[in-house]
Amino acid sequence: MINEFFKNISKIPYEGPGSDNPLAFKYYNPDEVIGGKPLKEHLRFALAYWHTLNGSGQDPFGVGTMIRPWLSISDPMEQAKARMRACFEIAEKLEIPFFCFHDRDIAPEGTTLRETNKLLDEVVEYTKDLMKDSPVKLLWGTANLFSHPRYVHGASTSPNAEVFAYAAAQVKKALEVTLYLDGQNYVFWGGREGYETLLNTNMQLELDNLARFLHMAVDYAKKIGFKGQFLIEPKPKEPTKHQYDFDVAAVYGFLRKYDLLPYFKVNIEMNHATLAYHTFQHELHFARINGILGSMDVNQGDYLLGWDTDQFPTNIYETTLAMYEVIKNGGIAPGGLNFDAKVRRGSFEPEDIFIAHIAGMDAFARGFKVAWKLLEDKAIEKHVEERYASYREGIGKKIVEGKVGFEDLEAYIIDKAEIKNASGRQELLEAVLNRYLLEA
Amino acid sequence: MINEFFKNISKIPYEGPGSDNPLAFKYYNPDEVIGGKPLKEHLRFALAYWHTLNGSGQDPFGVGTMIRPWLSISDPMEQAKARMRACFEIAEKLEIPFFCFHDRDIAPEGTTLRETNKLLDEVVEYTKDLMKDSPVKLLWGTANLFSHPRYVHGASTSPNAEVFAYAAAQVKKALEVTLYLDGQNYVFWGGREGYETLLNTNMQLELDNLARFLHMAVDYAKKIGFKGQFLIEPKPKEPTKHQYDFDVAAVYGFLRKYDLLPYFKVNIEMNHATLAYHTFQHELHFARINGILGSMDVNQGDYLLGWDTDQFPTNIYETTLAMYEVIKNGGIAPGGLNFDAKVRRGSFEPEDIFIAHIAGMDAFARGFKVAWKLLEDKAIEKHVEERYASYREGIGKKIVEGKVGFEDLEAYIIDKAEIKNASGRQELLEAVLNRYLLEA
Amino acid sequence: MINEFFKNISKIPYEGPGSDNPLAFKYYNPDEVIGGKPLKEHLRFALAYWHTLNGSGQDPFGVGTMIRPWLSISDPMEQAKARMRACFEIAEKLEIPFFCFHDRDIAPEGTTLRETNKLLDEVVEYTKDLMKDSPVKLLWGTANLFSHPRYVHGASTSPNAEVFAYAAAQVKKALEVTLYLDGQNYVFWGGREGYETLLNTNMQLELDNLARFLHMAVDYAKKIGFKGQFLIEPKPKEPTKHQYDFDVAAVYGFLRKYDLLPYFKVNIEMNHATLAYHTFQHELHFARINGILGSMDVNQGDYLLGWDTDQFPTNIYETTLAMYEVIKNGGIAPGGLNFDAKVRRGSFEPEDIFIAHIAGMDAFARGFKVAWKLLEDKAIEKHVEERYASYREGIGKKIVEGKVGFEDLEAYIIDKAEIKNASGRQELLEAVLNRYLLEA
Amino acid sequence: MINEFFKNISKIPYEGPGSDNPLAFKYYNPDEVIGGKPLKEHLRFALAYWHTLNGSGQDPFGVGTMIRPWLSISDPMEQAKARMRACFEIAEKLEIPFFCFHDRDIAPEGTTLRETNKLLDEVVEYTKDLMKDSPVKLLWGTANLFSHPRYVHGASTSPNAEVFAYAAAQVKKALEVTLYLDGQNYVFWGGREGYETLLNTNMQLELDNLARFLHMAVDYAKKIGFKGQFLIEPKPKEPTKHQYDFDVAAVYGFLRKYDLLPYFKVNIEMNHATLAYHTFQHELHFARINGILGSMDVNQGDYLLGWDTDQFPTNIYETTLAMYEVIKNGGIAPGGLNFDAKVRRGSFEPEDIFIAHIAGMDAFARGFKVAWKLLEDKAIEKHVEERYASYREGIGKKIVEGKVGFEDLEAYIIDKAEIKNASGRQELLEAVLNRYLLEA
Repeated sequence: MINEFFKNISKIPYEGPGSDNPLAFKYYNPDEVIGGKPLKEHLRFALAYWHTLNGSGQDPFGVGTMIRPWLSISDPMEQAKARMRACFEIAEKLEIPFFCFHDRDIAPEGTTLRETNKLLDEVVEYTKDLMKDSPVKLLWGTANLFSHPRYVHGASTSPNAEVFAYAAAQVKKALEVTLYLDGQNYVFWGGREGYETLLNTNMQLELDNLARFLHMAVDYAKKIGFKGQFLIEPKPKEPTKHQYDFDVAAVYGFLRKYDLLPYFKVNIEMNHATLAYHTFQHELHFARINGILGSMDVNQGDYLLGWDTDQFPTNIYETTLAMYEVIKNGGIAPGGLNFDAKVRRGSFEPEDIFIAHIAGMDAFARGFKVAWKLLEDKAIEKHVEERYASYREGIGKKIVEGKVGFEDLEAYIIDKAEIKNASGRQELLEAVLNRYLLEA
Repeated sequence: MINEFFKNISKIPYEGPGSDNPLAFKYYNPDEVIGGKPLKEHLRFALAYWHTLNGSGQDPFGVGTMIRPWLSISDPMEQAKARMRACFEIAEKLEIPFFCFHDRDIAPEGTTLRETNKLLDEVVEYTKDLMKDSPVKLLWGTANLFSHPRYVHGASTSPNAEVFAYAAAQVKKALEVTLYLDGQNYVFWGGREGYETLLNTNMQLELDNLARFLHMAVDYAKKIGFKGQFLIEPKPKEPTKHQYDFDVAAVYGFLRKYDLLPYFKVNIEMNHATLAYHTFQHELHFARINGILGSMDVNQGDYLLGWDTDQFPTNIYETTLAMYEVIKNGGIAPGGLNFDAKVRRGSFEPEDIFIAHIAGMDAFARGFKVAWKLLEDKAIEKHVEERYASYREGIGKKIVEGKVGFEDLEAYIIDKAEIKNASGRQELLEAVLNRYLLEA
Repeated sequence: MINEFFKNISKIPYEGPGSDNPLAFKYYNPDEVIGGKPLKEHLRFALAYWHTLNGSGQDPFGVGTMIRPWLSISDPMEQAKARMRACFEIAEKLEIPFFCFHDRDIAPEGTTLRETNKLLDEVVEYTKDLMKDSPVKLLWGTANLFSHPRYVHGASTSPNAEVFAYAAAQVKKALEVTLYLDGQNYVFWGGREGYETLLNTNMQLELDNLARFLHMAVDYAKKIGFKGQFLIEPKPKEPTKHQYDFDVAAVYGFLRKYDLLPYFKVNIEMNHATLAYHTFQHELHFARINGILGSMDVNQGDYLLGWDTDQFPTNIYETTLAMYEVIKNGGIAPGGLNFDAKVRRGSFEPEDIFIAHIAGMDAFARGFKVAWKLLEDKAIEKHVEERYASYREGIGKKIVEGKVGFEDLEAYIIDKAEIKNASGRQELLEAVLNRYLLEA
Repeated sequence: MINEFFKNISKIPYEGPGSDNPLAFKYYNPDEVIGGKPLKEHLRFALAYWHTLNGSGQDPFGVGTMIRPWLSISDPMEQAKARMRACFEIAEKLEIPFFCFHDRDIAPEGTTLRETNKLLDEVVEYTKDLMKDSPVKLLWGTANLFSHPRYVHGASTSPNAEVFAYAAAQVKKALEVTLYLDGQNYVFWGGREGYETLLNTNMQLELDNLARFLHMAVDYAKKIGFKGQFLIEPKPKEPTKHQYDFDVAAVYGFLRKYDLLPYFKVNIEMNHATLAYHTFQHELHFARINGILGSMDVNQGDYLLGWDTDQFPTNIYETTLAMYEVIKNGGIAPGGLNFDAKVRRGSFEPEDIFIAHIAGMDAFARGFKVAWKLLEDKAIEKHVEERYASYREGIGKKIVEGKVGFEDLEAYIIDKAEIKNASGRQELLEAVLNRYLLEA
């Protein structure tokens, strides 16, 4: 295990709930077996390269604050390799089994795309070597199609066809790299695929082009033998005024319209869910029942702030309800739980990276256990089953089986006395959730 | 023309922008011909029965305030008929060509559905008679599946199959009534079709049942020969925590999934759009380019309040951009512009009904004229066309025609110097809009 | 103890965390002594008459749903007395030591205020009698100055001076009644004290009148010997577009401006806090450090909904952080924790009243214990103290003591090398909170 | 007039509403006399140095996009001077009479504050020289206490006393510079004066320190003879989770508490108003009636986005209602209308700077004219006066004059029949506003 940048931090031990060691797990015991599988296989955590290795703490009103040991290395390629070593050091010390990156996170750009690709190849080769000696694997790769000024008006939805071409070439390369590093998924987040004002926008052409782009990606993946899962990551806005992949429902309709449903699932981020005014659980649930729950970006937003705060996830309610959906989904593999979260701008010391990940991993470990127990006991499910019992017999069964129409139903009901409903018992179920959360 | 309830108010004249008569139109000249058609045919205004005839001014913290002449009639059926006469009086005096209603707006309920239907039939027959002597037509009918306690947990998405049956029977009748009164559309607003908490909800069954219900409606309409347009009205929330028909994109995906797209369009309300954190124009535009823009509920929300305020629409920016989409859609028929708006609780005097409709109709008339001029001059369109010119030649044309893939695009771009983009000119276009708005 | 309306429910026992009896406390053991006082004295729970006895389940899109045994009593005064008996039955069975009411909650209105007062007196006398045999006391009284149409444009801020007079007379009576029933506080919630549109509003006169009104109340309380605490309850909006008592900071400035600060504290509601885009803890904290934390309306909002949902409080994070402020405040007496919460419209069965209160009381009991332990261990406080250590010595001490000005500070810093800050450790503190929350 | 950076753009002419020249004013005729004063003296526009000269187009997801001629100058001090020349060129070509800047906008930083001040002095001297030949004056100066990492936890509210000292020294210098350049106001915007989490915050000490800091500023201004107006600029959040100067009401209470009211007014920004869930007019109105309306940052937010978009102001409703308050305030001098607005990231061409300012200046010129006419005709005011007439006679007069208390008012009202209110006529007033907006 690399021990170069965080020498005062050793492998994070599991010490249990009684510990007040900030550098120990209280709930995440990676090898604890639940339902026949160790916790680490259930949770499939991943480290997000951009926040953890590249995040500077810059915000719209201030420059970077982060103290990072590799910043003293001035040669860009040497620094890039150092950051990659740091990535493995962090992941291994935290026992995080995966990492995720954008092409531009890991290597600097050259003057032309050809030069840029060459620089990227060098870091990729270096990474491949590091991976040989490490248990850490690539959960997913992606291409950054939003930071460079060329993408100011979008990438595959740019009004400029040259930009579409550039984006295509960039994704082509990112797919190759992901395949080469045995990445299990490939993610599309369209941060600039949307509009700033309808006054200057041809939305129809832009949506058609977005679909053309994704079909090209499907074709090329097939050609090169990339078998990983394709994921779209919804977000309603920011940086763009309106982003086309607004929420899971919008993505679902888009995939259906353009015959892309067989090829794509979604990567759902909690903070993106709340920016779209949905709960995280809602987005996971909706994706699950429509068969497109692919992976998760785990973080936490602030319900009172209107931008993507990408905080480390520490709310046990949120982690429990998220894991509830994952367990009902039969697990999240080949996707995982990617920590698309950044330490606060004020948490600028190197060890905050570890403290924050521990906080998040503990929160999800606890959440998983609570959710597992809830499902094992059918503590919630039995209420739901009973509530819908009327569709398993009589007129309800006929409705579900398609055996009746408006006329039959009118005949059935027209002379009946008033219908009796049962309480929805929301408060009871919330109390049950609390009991499991606190006692699981 | 009936002159019974508002005797001090005569037919509202068009007096032009110079007038300060509160009971005259300043911009809405119904017979003014634009593009070969009178304004009233372009705008197709409708009066919303529930707000204008039944609205009491009640809110969650206070009882009704509205002074309405028919409230002194104590017999429910006599009052129902009086309200219908008042509906025609208001519509005719304002030269509003259509009205819209829910089944329960126009007649009281009985003990069983059969009795309720009988009461409804009596008012419908009465209405049919009134329509013979009136130019006012039925734009759309609908069933109220949300006010009665039986719908506490939903109608077609209720966990109780008997409630599904009741809702089905109620829509069956509402369809018959709409057909009988020559209604041109039929609307589904699922105010209770959603959930309060996921803890007690089987979303999959509920969505399947919603689709089953709509298919039954399609089948029954075919059977009875109802040729009107079917419309779904999206709303994200309120009264329900989450409503399935969240926004146009969610409805679109739902219609595609359940093979309902051939049968349904959407009825878009401005305040529902903003509650879903979209602009009204966005929702109209998205529906238009997907071929499902059917009709509009015209009102105005308050961007700083989180509930459906249903104010009368007076913002000329909003009306202009809405009519811009309507004109690009080739008009809104057989849909229309239904004033799903209520006078403020503090505007409780009878003449406020007229003042508020005049304000809204003038705002839309002005907005229509501004939009028409913008399109006639291609004041905005020419910028948009130029902006996307690269897709009409060279590599862009090949992209659109499907002649290239990732490899071709990489070859095209890999050695090129940096791409040059052009300004999006948002501020210029906003200034152009202002100039047309003020000078049209 | 009355056992008339909820015969199948007996006094709610404390059974501890292991119990899954929906009608038992898991965390609220009223007689458990912490810090020398039983839990019930720390928490000072109160039942809110309006929601629990009068709440019908009506919402803006539907009529009432609640099944309540007293609704079959048709005589208004008999029903009023029955509801009062039910109030005591519920409070005693739940061991809630206080109740709170508006004048109009407990008795119907007559034709003139004199008649109304007479009806009120009759119920008050009846209540006084019930109180003799009950441990349940009056936490606070208030006047409903928002439901009646006369208050459509405000009460003390009405543009109509007669309405001001009526409101004054109504508060006069409510103060007398509160005094007569030994109420420990009197609350002003100005639901209609604000504006719908600035276009028709004289805000300056309205604010001056609001202050005049409150001074009159202070004078009259002194005259009749009412020694209870006066409380203003902030809310930013709803039903009014803008409410003058927007948040604690707005109320604080108002009290200072009009020399009312010596006489008033605030009654803070969680859902009102979040509607003003503050956390509940923020509002409590700000009030506490400004010496005006008087009492609390405990409920829970939905961060994704824009109206006052008044849910029963079940989120342990919220209850913990609220109790943290209360403990730091030296307790909440003579105020209390009033359950200004309503069972969901779908939780319409009588026993949901008990289930929901149990959920809320357990959540606050657990929150209290977590907060107590956090403070006892200084688990959070020690971090805060250390963080601000620089103000207890050197230049920092001089700043705090007012011994230095801009020139001294410039001289101190002008040639120094860059300042070193320490991490704010937000993630660590969130993890500490989690550990205490789960293990306390 | 400098003609160095924008050679293809000459002085912007007024061409009137008929013009479609993007580089001409349609409504802003600076010398047009209204009410005895030219428009430019009513409006007192200012250019915001940071956005217009330094703004790069960077956002949280992308780097800068702006094409600016001075970016090719690599020497920081030479570039700083070039930017200053560009500032005067832009302001003069647009006939903007003022500019505003932060200390760090105009000169780079050195290693110590002493060095930084030296660099600042050099640019200030250079600016002083430029001002001799220019009509452009300094509206206000300010210090940037938020961008540098030292301010990560706040400036005067930092937990680190050294940071307080540094901030003090920086404001001392900024005051001296503002005085030297004849600045008419000095602004405090506390972007980092707030908290990220209450868990690590001593709010009481922080607020006390903020007040100490402002008192020191008052003392030092007196000492050096700075007679300009002191302004606080409220903002609720961003970059900070909670900013102490949340809105005008919060600032007002703070100023009262700490005896700062005699020395401070507010500088109100529209986008900050809406982030606090107020209208711009509300904030201006509330400040006006409390005597603290000092100056304005004119821009426009997006009601559907949750961050500070700082768009150029083009909405005529907003500009009209803002100028309505300004005229009622007797003008805005010595404050002004500072364009704290940035061209969109996609509007990156140099001429967009001019196009955007023209759009904003035209919008305010039109708004001013509409507001002037509304007030001249008392089109709105007469409704308001009539509405509150009851406080100018009878019982209302006695209330206002403090001659009655609760007992008198009860005696007055207790036997009266129901009170009659009048309609608030919101829709009518909105229609009146539309008529003036379109026809003024």
